[in-house]
Amino acid sequence: MTAHELKKEKRIQEIIQKIDALGLELVKELEAGENPSLEIPIRGSSNIYFDEKNRKIRLGDKVSHRYLFNVSHARKFMQTMLVASYVKKDLLENNLTATLRDLYYAKKHTIEGTKEDTIDEQTESDQAIVDFEVALGTFRERLHLRAEPKGRMAGEMTVVDHVRDKSDRINLAKMGSGGWAVPSIVEQVEFDNVGVEYVLVAEKNAIFDRLNEDGYWMKNKCLLMTTAGQAARGARRLLQRLSDELKLPVYCLTDSDPYGWYIYSTMKYGSMALAHESERLGCEKMHFLGMSTTDIETYDLKSVTIKAKEVDVKRATEMKNYDWFKSKPWQDEIDLFLKKRLKAEIQALSSKNLQYISKTYLPEKIAAQDFLP
Amino acid sequence: MTAHELKKEKRIQEIIQKIDALGLELVKELEAGENPSLEIPIRGSSNIYFDEKNRKIRLGDKVSHRYLFNVSHARKFMQTMLVASYVKKDLLENNLTATLRDLYYAKKHTIEGTKEDTIDEQTESDQAIVDFEVALGTFRERLHLRAEPKGRMAGEMTVVDHVRDKSDRINLAKMGSGGWAVPSIVEQVEFDNVGVEYVLVAEKNAIFDRLNEDGYWMKNKCLLMTTAGQAARGARRLLQRLSDELKLPVYCLTDSDPYGWYIYSTMKYGSMALAHESERLGCEKMHFLGMSTTDIETYDLKSVTIKAKEVDVKRATEMKNYDWFKSKPWQDEIDLFLKKRLKAEIQALSSKNLQYISKTYLPEKIAAQDFLP
Repeated sequence: MTAHELKKEKRIQEIIQKIDALGLELVKELEAGENPSLEIPIRGSSNIYFDEKNRKIRLGDKVSHRYLFNVSHARKFMQTMLVASYVKKDLLENNLTATLRDLYYAKKHTIEGTKEDTIDEQTESDQAIVDFEVALGTFRERLHLRAEPKGRMAGEMTVVDHVRDKSDRINLAKMGSGGWAVPSIVEQVEFDNVGVEYVLVAEKNAIFDRLNEDGYWMKNKCLLMTTAGQAARGARRLLQRLSDELKLPVYCLTDSDPYGWYIYSTMKYGSMALAHESERLGCEKMHFLGMSTTDIETYDLKSVTIKAKEVDVKRATEMKNYDWFKSKPWQDEIDLFLKKRLKAEIQALSSKNLQYISKTYLPEKIAAQDFLP
Repeated sequence: MTAHELKKEKRIQEIIQKIDALGLELVKELEAGENPSLEIPIRGSSNIYFDEKNRKIRLGDKVSHRYLFNVSHARKFMQTMLVASYVKKDLLENNLTATLRDLYYAKKHTIEGTKEDTIDEQTESDQAIVDFEVALGTFRERLHLRAEPKGRMAGEMTVVDHVRDKSDRINLAKMGSGGWAVPSIVEQVEFDNVGVEYVLVAEKNAIFDRLNEDGYWMKNKCLLMTTAGQAARGARRLLQRLSDELKLPVYCLTDSDPYGWYIYSTMKYGSMALAHESERLGCEKMHFLGMSTTDIETYDLKSVTIKAKEVDVKRATEMKNYDWFKSKPWQDEIDLFLKKRLKAEIQALSSKNLQYISKTYLPEKIAAQDFLP
């Protein structure tokens, strides 16, 4: 076995042991004539807080108990057990990964002798998966469950990616105009020949294409990534690993609007919907490079702005109250937005000239370390 | 200059010459005291037909004339000229590419001495771009205009991709779990070391991940691609080139529902909205591998089907009348769907077992050449 295979096998065995321990505990309770129960951290807003010290949106320590012999718990209990069985026997023991939809199809069936289906809608098995992740204190990818992949990368770095019995060395500096597609699961990915000084993550494919064509990442020794909209889990986890393991600064580039801020804050702090995942997906050292509302004046972009809609104003007002936007620079940014009520897309810079972003905007902003926290 | 650079330069010069010729013609008309006009093929449904011989949805030969000195034409005429100028001077002459949005931002301005903007909404410049493409008898990518990229690839083949002054050799057999991201523009891409016997294009990322993890493309000598939903222009053009230039059979895998058929037919025949592009984007030799409504019985998937909604039935009824679905096998397929009113996702095969698609379904279907035309 290679070092990588050993590490992977160890990761798999750790989870299998956790699942076995949980199962044995339930059997013990059953044999003792007790009502078996699962302890599941509560994921509602009452149990979500902002951890100032670690700069992450997190789950608190409130838990609920789910009992097998309880009419309103039994169905969910059974579904959680179906998830446990699928993860252990179908996925981990065979070293296979699957999507949430695969699990739903595999475990949906009519219970013998009844007209009752184990699972009606996929939302039920999805919920059971999250319950199981949280109960086990692990995350989906470690259970070999894949999310939809999204995003592309290029830069002077080699990624070593292991797909079952094959290991590929991928030179991200030789990916042509396409880039390397960021996979759903990146736990197995290793970094090598790191020749970059920072990571630049752009919300938009178009910006990746622009900067890639301009050779921006070559000239500026950066690792370029696009999330192609709201970042997928694979991209978020990869950013965290690049920041934590390689100590690379990570700069984020979104449109200047509340949706752009939201994309940024999700990558940086995690989200309320997935508060239990912030630990593994948050990249708390990320900086917001732009576009900022101030950029609109600085770079004379007023004529290519878009008027904010009521929904933008409402969203901005909400975000102003979030604990993770309470720093002075962000409060000022949001206030300025609420005053001007103007949005700007990164591509508005194309009104100057096509390469303005590569040749002027980015070098200037980065040299001046003109970031929002 | 390398052979590739010469070829690219030639492609660029050809378009520049076409633009110059069009411009000179307009100047000549102006100098002769005439009302300059552009001849633009009509793109409405009255001018769209199915070319049985070449198996493509096409534009007919009806044209409209757009005059400079005509109150209802002048604005569009001006916008088409803005597009021409941007494409020639900003893009082709600098060997740069841009998005439709970049063009919009670059050419939107208030006309001096008036309160009139050249372009109000991007839809106007987008329309002008299509007009210009059609008038010039070329396509967007040749004008160096990029669409949103989507899709991933893996297989025993090397792609040589030229990004401005750099040429990358990308071994698609060494792309790890991510795959190579299909770029927006693939005109410059060359194929080398082709070790595959067919192309398998799946609508869904999840299927790419499944088949990639199972090493399906290695064992079956296929080039694997996902379009990640409705295929983007880059993916469509690449499929056409793989079919035309390498003479590779192309098999398509979508869900069994009218939306899946639509995704397939767009890749194969083109679409009504982009009928002028079918020539460059249609892959008329593509086969529909599955899922078919018959597969639901053959593979005993009834318990994991989804009831068709009214909108599906309506869509299927419409599609039954399209000229490109008039073959007997497709008429039977649609009739069977309308009778059973059941949809099935490819992932429904996961209800058998996770690798059923790799180990049973695909090998069986391909061995039996069980395709719809």
